[in-house]
Amino acid sequence: MTTESSSPSSAFQSSAPVFDATFQAQFEALLRWRRDVRRFRPDALPEGLLDRLLALADLAPSVGLSQPWRFVRVTSPDLRREIVANFEAANAAALADYSGSRAALYARLKLAGLREAPEHLAVFAELTPEAGQGLGRRTMPETLQYSVVCAVHTLWLAARAAGIGVGWVSILEPHAVARALAVPGSWHMVAYLCLGYPEEEHTDPELERHGWQDRTPGETRLLTR
Amino acid sequence: MTTESSSPSSAFQSSAPVFDATFQAQFEALLRWRRDVRRFRPDALPEGLLDRLLALADLAPSVGLSQPWRFVRVTSPDLRREIVANFEAANAAALADYSGSRAALYARLKLAGLREAPEHLAVFAELTPEAGQGLGRRTMPETLQYSVVCAVHTLWLAARAAGIGVGWVSILEPHAVARALAVPGSWHMVAYLCLGYPEEEHTDPELERHGWQDRTPGETRLLTR
Repeated sequence: MTTESSSPSSAFQSSAPVFDATFQAQFEALLRWRRDVRRFRPDALPEGLLDRLLALADLAPSVGLSQPWRFVRVTSPDLRREIVANFEAANAAALADYSGSRAALYARLKLAGLREAPEHLAVFAELTPEAGQGLGRRTMPETLQYSVVCAVHTLWLAARAAGIGVGWVSILEPHAVARALAVPGSWHMVAYLCLGYPEEEHTDPELERHGWQDRTPGETRLLTR
Repeated sequence: MTTESSSPSSAFQSSAPVFDATFQAQFEALLRWRRDVRRFRPDALPEGLLDRLLALADLAPSVGLSQPWRFVRVTSPDLRREIVANFEAANAAALADYSGSRAALYARLKLAGLREAPEHLAVFAELTPEAGQGLGRRTMPETLQYSVVCAVHTLWLAARAAGIGVGWVSILEPHAVARALAVPGSWHMVAYLCLGYPEEEHTDPELERHGWQDRTPGETRLLTR
């Protein structure tokens, strides 16, 4: 085993930063105010902020250090219209799965802010990355997509820390998005994100506030073996 | 559309917290010092910390507010031995995929801290949750697993903020883990985590430090359409 201290490229430091109680409380506040945003102001993001958020997302963990996330910034009005049409078709099909008062409630929900959000980011996983040399994904190849989710979540938290809301739109036919954006065939869509300044700020989820689903106690999700 | 201000349960506040430049710099440091840890001190976590980390993980975003994450705290020495044996078999099979100097390098890597880590958490996705009523996952059912990854990543960052390292072990046969832990059949393993105080702190990934894979520039991962 190589020793850490003898490596010239080592970033080893005997005293790592201490994240104090103030930071920890602010971090908890960040988690509580990090919401899925569907109501955006149309104002553009400040110059350079999107690049900074992408650079922070790049710090996410990845299986075998494969960094398999691929981002597509969608700026073309025609492509955005195609994404909106994709969402509307998928949302209509989803509505048809419900009936009665559930269907009426579903129809009232606002489930995406695609028209208003100033930034659209489609996020893909490269399923055949050279980087990482396959390490860590022999029995669990889906860790490539999971790595991309870590990058999305990193970007989401970093955006909120900068006052920007993110909405993750999953009511889309992902292969049609990939075709529309003409990405390489080995790219698998993981997420489609809207970014912008939120119209409102909340600590409760929109789906809870509008009566779709309450949060439930965490104790029900833990076993000991 | 319901109006936010008329809802009695609304947590709407006109002035959300501002995360200032100091917090944003500390948050970036957290992302940089958040590493995949495989070298643990055997010391136990402070009383109550694991519960706090799980409560913070519960704040993660989830598709349709389904909160599909399920945690299994693995404390039984027999079960832990079974997990170690599972890892060792999967790791030997992975090693056999490489040859020459790559195989020699792979064999020298330390890829898990299962024996030393004081806490083991297996993390599953409930693939048939009632919560969420299916919202948001008709065309992308994998968003259930992705929600669980968001919870894992939340826990990971919260742990690091508290001085605790996390290592995500993916060199495991996941169905064998599920069988060993006797979880419900609808639970799908997403991650197996080791938690504990790290022996060393770094800002560079262990796989980079030991010559397996370098980080690559983020510009190569962005397209505009």
